[in-house]
Amino acid sequence: MTVDGKDYRTVWMDGGSVFMIEQNLLPFEFRIIACLNYRETCHAIRTMVIRGAGAIGAAAGYAMAQAAGEAQGTDKLIFLENSRHEIESTRPTARNLFYATERVFQAALVSPANARKEAEEIADEDAAASRRIGELGKTLIPQGAGVATHCNAGWLAFVDYGTALSPIYMSHQDSNKLFVYVDETRPRSQGARLTAWELHNAGIPHAIIPDNATAWYMAQGKIDLVIVGADRIAANGDTANKIGTLEKAIAAKYYNIPFYVAAPTSTFDMNCPDGSHIVIEERDPEEVLYQDGLTIEGKKERILVCSPGSPALNPAFDVTPAGLISGFITEEGISHTVVMQ
Amino acid sequence: MTVDGKDYRTVWMDGGSVFMIEQNLLPFEFRIIACLNYRETCHAIRTMVIRGAGAIGAAAGYAMAQAAGEAQGTDKLIFLENSRHEIESTRPTARNLFYATERVFQAALVSPANARKEAEEIADEDAAASRRIGELGKTLIPQGAGVATHCNAGWLAFVDYGTALSPIYMSHQDSNKLFVYVDETRPRSQGARLTAWELHNAGIPHAIIPDNATAWYMAQGKIDLVIVGADRIAANGDTANKIGTLEKAIAAKYYNIPFYVAAPTSTFDMNCPDGSHIVIEERDPEEVLYQDGLTIEGKKERILVCSPGSPALNPAFDVTPAGLISGFITEEGISHTVVMQ
Repeated sequence: MTVDGKDYRTVWMDGGSVFMIEQNLLPFEFRIIACLNYRETCHAIRTMVIRGAGAIGAAAGYAMAQAAGEAQGTDKLIFLENSRHEIESTRPTARNLFYATERVFQAALVSPANARKEAEEIADEDAAASRRIGELGKTLIPQGAGVATHCNAGWLAFVDYGTALSPIYMSHQDSNKLFVYVDETRPRSQGARLTAWELHNAGIPHAIIPDNATAWYMAQGKIDLVIVGADRIAANGDTANKIGTLEKAIAAKYYNIPFYVAAPTSTFDMNCPDGSHIVIEERDPEEVLYQDGLTIEGKKERILVCSPGSPALNPAFDVTPAGLISGFITEEGISHTVVMQ
Repeated sequence: MTVDGKDYRTVWMDGGSVFMIEQNLLPFEFRIIACLNYRETCHAIRTMVIRGAGAIGAAAGYAMAQAAGEAQGTDKLIFLENSRHEIESTRPTARNLFYATERVFQAALVSPANARKEAEEIADEDAAASRRIGELGKTLIPQGAGVATHCNAGWLAFVDYGTALSPIYMSHQDSNKLFVYVDETRPRSQGARLTAWELHNAGIPHAIIPDNATAWYMAQGKIDLVIVGADRIAANGDTANKIGTLEKAIAAKYYNIPFYVAAPTSTFDMNCPDGSHIVIEERDPEEVLYQDGLTIEGKKERILVCSPGSPALNPAFDVTPAGLISGFITEEGISHTVVMQ
């Protein structure tokens, strides 16, 4: 995607270095960092310089390719195995990460050049799948539609285009005068910070709304469809995604508004029969109690925003039952859910 | 209610002065301020030192009583009329305010002592209604229940006890080991700041949750009922309340969880046939874009929490259709909604 007139992916490799957008600085600062070796790339993944399923997978593939280039002498295989283990331990719950390290590790057994080629292919495949999701998904967006989205499933979470936002980008390119309702997505505010930043950057009309307001805009007929991403989709279609997705899906059902999940087919976990088998990560309550931002003087500051002494709960994801989902937008096509009553 | 071992109402009169809890400083500081004359009380209402339907009404009654005491000589009636106009202009949309000024103004025509007595009666009636709502409402809370609430309809919003929180206080006093899920209530965070402060102060087990998480706790069977307050209830039962109430009501319906509105009968507006006649206040987008809180050093700070350059929408209230409400808890009894299908 284009930032300040220049095309960027979220992560790419040049020479022996991996470059990425420093997402911890967004939305307040746009900066590219260079990881000179696989250890620096591991550190970047671990500290969430890069985040989002597709982007993590691509970064992990590049890290493995870096390791292949760095391996020397008779201990080459041991070095490769150790570095693979190190890469995989950076974000142990990210499925795409293991998929990428496995592929590039196998390629590295042939040659470093082969590893590099495999890593590039993973990144290209991710970008192509996202692009295809956009091309297919844009057909679902009526002219002048109000589209709601939750969290950030934009290009920052993938190598390019994104999933939930890809159809929005493609539809906008086709001159559709759509309007995007961006859920703030507390507690980490990925909607207000990342999705809003992406849409502002792309010149797509939008507004940040409190998570509390989505149903109210649905009630007033302002929202024609909802598109969200997914972290994991069970075999029966139950979908784990950012906390709040479930509440939006219930509201959409109540108002008969189409609710789509956009995700590459790699997000489907056929070994997981249904949502009850998905374990939900409980994150640090401090993410609810405190908030980060910029003071009027432009200084970064963290402030307590809740009553001191009260505890908080912070489930990171929820599971939306398949019956609330109108369909899945994947790179292989749009599957409309048929629910057995 | 008790704070630091001492009983308080949100507002009271002693001598010629009106005292109130400075709610702008909560939850970070508990301080009482004294308003020495009716003009100072007006200023306090206007600057939201005191907020919430019942509390504003009582404060306005006291201000009118102060004005009655301050009126002298032959221009007494003109002074009373002017001061009444001044009091009513502080928060022109607060229904309870006009009700209180009318009653105390009529009493002031007899004598300042009579005005004072009338103002005390208004405050006492508000406290008694809230107390009665608690006594009736507590019967709806099962032993060991998980109760969800939205925004702040606690004692800070009334003279004492509150509405949505009153049944929770009474049930807790009866040794019911309940647990309260406190919706953060973005953008102004009245749940995380005021309701959490009240419950922490009263020693009632609770946790602040992101507004996005309520449906997820419902899905897991953690929430047995929801109790919220109301800003205005139409003749058909459609209820205007803090933004997000509608979304919670839809989720409660989906999971068959009882959803109660607690409010004094004065909140019912029989001149308003249904929710479509209720105009929703659109507030400053800065309430979404910025947040106030305390730095680690204990300094008050305001920070930008959204992507710079993106607009926000900030509807203050929404309207929950009567069909989503299980019943109304009033001081006169609990009315269970019967919906014509």
